This record gives sequence, structure tokens and C-alpha cells, in this order.
Amino acid sequence: MDLIAIREIEQLKYRYLRTLDLKEWDDFGQTLAEDIDATYGTRLSFQGRDQVVDYMRESLPGTIITLHQCHHPEITVDGDTAVGTWYLEDKVLVTDQKLMLTGASFYTDTYRRRDGQWQIAKTTYIRTFEAMESLPADWTLTANRWG
Amino acid sequence: MDLIAIREIEQLKYRYLRTLDLKEWDDFGQTLAEDIDATYGTRLSFQGRDQVVDYMRESLPGTIITLHQCHHPEITVDGDTAVGTWYLEDKVLVTDQKLMLTGASFYTDTYRRRDGQWQIAKTTYIRTFEAMESLPADWTLTANRWG
Amino acid sequence: MDLIAIREIEQLKYRYLRTLDLKEWDDFGQTLAEDIDATYGTRLSFQGRDQVVDYMRESLPGTIITLHQCHHPEITVDGDTAVGTWYLEDKVLVTDQKLMLTGASFYTDTYRRRDGQWQIAKTTYIRTFEAMESLPADWTLTANRWG
Repeated sequence: MDLIAIREIEQLKYRYLRTLDLKEWDDFGQTLAEDIDATYGTRLSFQGRDQVVDYMRESLPGTIITLHQCHHPEITVDGDTAVGTWYLEDKVLVTDQKLMLTGASFYTDTYRRRDGQWQIAKTTYIRTFEAMESLPADWTLTANRWG
Repeated sequence: MDLIAIREIEQLKYRYLRTLDLKEWDDFGQTLAEDIDATYGTRLSFQGRDQVVDYMRESLPGTIITLHQCHHPEITVDGDTAVGTWYLEDKVLVTDQKLMLTGASFYTDTYRRRDGQWQIAKTTYIRTFEAMESLPADWTLTANRWG
Repeated sequence: MDLIAIREIEQLKYRYLRTLDLKEWDDFGQTLAEDIDATYGTRLSFQGRDQVVDYMRESLPGTIITLHQCHHPEITVDGDTAVGTWYLEDKVLVTDQKLMLTGASFYTDTYRRRDGQWQIAKTTYIRTFEAMESLPADWTLTANRWG
């Protein structure tokens, strides 16, 4: 078991999720292989880094606060390639419409190491569930990084 | 600190939680020692793998979507035995009644290694809280693995 | 990459969060350096262990149930010092007023090792969001460690 490589891949995934939720799109792009194959659930599918980054940048303005946290890494390394599954919990707050999406998914990723750096080469997930609801009438943001 | 054994035990726990939430009952059973002693909160207590698996299989049909995520592993290995604490967050969606249970617990587990494989020999948790509530009137599933 | 030191620091953080949510204030204090510099969001700032522990003890009686879970550790060790970022999700249930606070933050911590023990020397976080809402009318605690 290559604990160092496993840790490096975990750090890559955490950086991907952190830059996603902080809307740091250039750094987000650096976690993805240029030819990434990315499929999120049954509705979203992208070919290549630019498609993923452009979509995220456009669909996630400051009025939309996201939380994407991945747990339970099960990662197997084979030389400069690795596969991993993760258990995602996510929440999307559409602040101007007072809507909330919540969900959970199992991710299956492929990672590739080039010049000593791991990137996400393929990512896909299957949801256990996803739900949409209105937030309660008195729901109030008391802190908002983009407010 | 035996980092390899700790990682193996984490993988075991993640497999236990993944197969639980995916309702893969045969694989779920394989994470449990045949003579497991399992107590969940103050209401549920089981002796042996078959009791646990039978209970889960019967009480968690496709109308009940569960999310069980364990965090903060604190694991101590002693030869072929180990103890671990985890911080569980769980959510149960009773879709046909539009009810939701949410809760959190601290797990204390004992693990046992036989023929190179770790299994859960004892598991128990104490809740910090558990709550039940009706879901909002407009709560709608937009994805459902069992729908 | 010093995997042992990283793991020790993770254990420290888990102990800090566990004793916080279990209201075990003496053990909580032991995770903090005596001269800790602690800032939580924009409203709370403390100098020294006693200030932090006193504040938590007074503001978190048994009527207030908290959940603080930290994910995605990104830790860099440099001798007897280390820095780490974490992705917090928290929930506070004010049970007697049926109010709930939910939020998420990115923590940045500094850790210091003295006599072989790591402690939190500095901790600060920036929220992505924090929200307050009333719990649904039929929300009912079915388990409560402090009930």
C-alpha cells in the first residue's frame, strides 16, 4: 500500500473541492487533466478541462453557495495511475431564490501522475439521492463569503 | 503507529458504510465478524452477523434512503486487535411518508484480524442527538437510486 | 511527507472537536496551547487557552447541542511546527428555542510540538456561509445526550 501516493491523491481531491466551493476557477482547473472525462450524475457530462471549468464558472456565481465534501476514500494505486471511490455529501444554496439542493453520491475517479503531479483524469458519480426544497421563511444568512 | 493496519481498518469501515447505504447486504455482512456484538443507541442490539444483516435488510427497503458517514477516526492497533472511535453523522429519508431523521453519534468499535482480514467484532455508539421531522411540503426528490 | 506527524495532528484535531461537542472542557483545553490565538469567523477572538475554554463552557450549556466536523485535512509539517487547513461543517441546535444554525468554514491552523505532544497554537476560520432558521413545528428530539 503506497501511503504517500494515496495521501497525495487525497490532497488533490481536497484541493479540487476547496477551489470549487471557493470559486477559485484557475486553481480548480489545475486539479483536472487537460483531457478529463467528467460526468456528474445523469445530466452533466464534459470532455476536457475547459468544458468543466467554463461550466462551473458560469453556473456558480456568488448568489449560489455550494458545499461539496467527500468522505471515505478507498484508493488503489498502480504505478502512475490510481482509482478511487469517495462518498460525497453536497448542499447548494440558491440564495436569491431561497432554494436548497441536498444530495449524496458515490464518486468513482481515475487519477494520473505526470511529472510527479497527480491530476483527475476521469470522474463520475452516481447519486443515492438528490432533493430540492424551499428554505424556511425565516432562514437568514448570518455570514456569506460572497455577500 | 501501524499506518497500514489503521488504513486497512478505515477501508473496512468505509466498506461497511458504503454497502449499508447501497443496500448491498451480502457484502455488508462480510465486514462483520460472524459473532459480532452490535448495539446502535439505546434501542437496537444484535448478536451475530445474521441478526444484524437480517434486521438491516428488512428495515431498509428502497423507500428508505440512508446516509451514514463516519468521520474523525481515532484508531489504536494492538497486534490482531484494534479499537476505534468515529464521529457519525446520519440522515434517514422515509420517502413515502416525507419524514427525515437526522442524528450524530460517537462510535466505539473493536476490530479483529483473522487470516489477514480485518472485521468488525464489536460496534456500539452513543448519540449526541437524534431528531425526527416532516420534510417541507415542496421537498422533491430529483434523483433517487431506488426510485 | 511525515505521515506519522500528520496523523498525530489529525488525532489532535479530532480530539479537539470531540471534546467540544461532548462538552468535556478540561480535555478540550488540553488540545490548546496555553498561549493559543483563536479567531472564529468575524465575531469571536480569544487570547490564551483559558479565554477559549471559559467562553465555550459558558456559551454551550446542555440546551445547546453542537456538531463540529472537520474534513479534507491539508497539513504540512516543518519540524516541530505544522500548518493545516480543514473544511468545517457545523450545526448548532438551540433546543429550548427550536432554532438551528448551520454553516461551513475553511480553518487555517498552526500546530506546535512540545515534549512530543502537538497542540493547537493558532486557529482561525473564514466562513463560506452561516445561516439561522427555526426548526419545523413537528421537529422532535428522539435522543439527546443532555436531555
